[in-house]
Amino acid sequence: MSEFNMQSYLKFWGAKVEEFFETYVACPDENVKGLVDAMRYSLFAGGKRLRPALVFSSYGVFEGYFDKATPFAAAVEMLHTYSLIHDDLPAMDDDDYRRGKPTNHKMYGEATAILAGDGLLTKAFEVMCNAEINPDVEPAQMLEAAYKLADAAGDRGMVGGQFTDMEAEDGVFNSATVDFIHMNKTSRLISYCCELGAILGFGSEDDKKRMREYGIRIGLAFQIVDDILDIASTTEELGKNVGSDQERGKATYPALHGLEESHRKAEMLIEEALEIISVYGKTAEPCREIAKFIIERKN
Amino acid sequence: MSEFNMQSYLKFWGAKVEEFFETYVACPDENVKGLVDAMRYSLFAGGKRLRPALVFSSYGVFEGYFDKATPFAAAVEMLHTYSLIHDDLPAMDDDDYRRGKPTNHKMYGEATAILAGDGLLTKAFEVMCNAEINPDVEPAQMLEAAYKLADAAGDRGMVGGQFTDMEAEDGVFNSATVDFIHMNKTSRLISYCCELGAILGFGSEDDKKRMREYGIRIGLAFQIVDDILDIASTTEELGKNVGSDQERGKATYPALHGLEESHRKAEMLIEEALEIISVYGKTAEPCREIAKFIIERKN
Repeated sequence: MSEFNMQSYLKFWGAKVEEFFETYVACPDENVKGLVDAMRYSLFAGGKRLRPALVFSSYGVFEGYFDKATPFAAAVEMLHTYSLIHDDLPAMDDDDYRRGKPTNHKMYGEATAILAGDGLLTKAFEVMCNAEINPDVEPAQMLEAAYKLADAAGDRGMVGGQFTDMEAEDGVFNSATVDFIHMNKTSRLISYCCELGAILGFGSEDDKKRMREYGIRIGLAFQIVDDILDIASTTEELGKNVGSDQERGKATYPALHGLEESHRKAEMLIEEALEIISVYGKTAEPCREIAKFIIERKN
Repeated sequence: MSEFNMQSYLKFWGAKVEEFFETYVACPDENVKGLVDAMRYSLFAGGKRLRPALVFSSYGVFEGYFDKATPFAAAVEMLHTYSLIHDDLPAMDDDDYRRGKPTNHKMYGEATAILAGDGLLTKAFEVMCNAEINPDVEPAQMLEAAYKLADAAGDRGMVGGQFTDMEAEDGVFNSATVDFIHMNKTSRLISYCCELGAILGFGSEDDKKRMREYGIRIGLAFQIVDDILDIASTTEELGKNVGSDQERGKATYPALHGLEESHRKAEMLIEEALEIISVYGKTAEPCREIAKFIIERKN
């Protein structure tokens, strides 16, 4: 049996969503070319495509018609991309670089970056609710997918997490605040990706819960590792400024508990995640590999 | 027969959506109180509630279970409110006042205003896709409602219109650009409100098309009247700075064609709109009254 190669795996599923972006995120009118260019710039700026890979790998636990999952995986990546564009804005994190490239507002200006984010957020729901491009998905499944995405991404989820993160930037925060930020800013959407696979694959309510719980844990581990890398990595490895969290007095796990304890916590979370999906057989192998990758990654 | 009173009509349906906001847009966690406060501030900042009224009046042409339409009317107003918050941002129109009150970013700061807009946009889809609060709406209807909202509001609609509007602010624009901006920035969403009534009321494809076409025309007339009022009205009547369009060299219909021709155009559009819905009987009276109100309004 050949060894699992995470880079190839991410690249393979990344290519699927990029193909979807290529045809679906296209300029509808010459007047908005600059807007669609800005949307595409960030969509194609070379992310890891972790979230799409999570949708595909979770879906693969239950079913194998992967084309069916493609628009949904792409929609999640659109939503994730919008959140990066808005987070980078001068009024927010004020970042000049992302993945080694100028951030959206540095390329296109602030107004266009705000609108490109708005456009991508809107398009994520457009894709998930488009019956024409999802002929093999039942209306009730599409609705559940879209509703749970909104729940995970809005004020009760990701947007709420980002707000709390901004508020905590004065450096006064406690362990509960950090947990709230991690849970909402990062983990809810990652958890959603995992549940989405069960929704599309006709998993039971138990399956959905299990995938959601697995996702929460790998999401929290992912954020802790992100914060560790911000401290321990170099700018070149990371493609963005390192140490910026500390400078800003950001609420992070390592800032509160130190690097060693942070490592331990991330490892524990991954162990729990693996335990939760141990009820599944071989079809869950990619989910296991992704869990391990999350604490082993270097950028 | 008593006379139709538009102010009472708008107030009545406005109260329905405000009641919905009151319970549905509530603080989920102390950490995000400031965010939800900002979302509610703009939701309750006293708009005309024209779009909800359009959803209810259009729905009333086909069915009369108005409670069924409430979450959808509220969702459209949430989406409209997000667009106002983002349009007012310093990087966009940089407005300090809206409806006689400080704009969202003036009250809560830019970062929170961006996130409040993101939260409201996301919540609009959350509401439309929430099967629990919409037990009398079929999944296929909800999906169609959500998909068409995204289509009307995204890069192929409202966001595209706002982008083009920003680009045209250097004062160099032609008639085709102005038409494109009006159609997309304003008219698409208003047209959607009208079609939404037909979707929820089980109208035929012909009905949907008719309501959409009626909506396009009242939407265009609405924007032309808005631009006329910006020139001809006083700050007190309007609740925002007047003449600001001219100062910015904004692409407006009166700027290109003059006040008189603009009046004529708006009147012609309303006549066409009334002609389109002349196939309907008494249930379409509110739609007719709204069409007339749109050119008669003073703010």
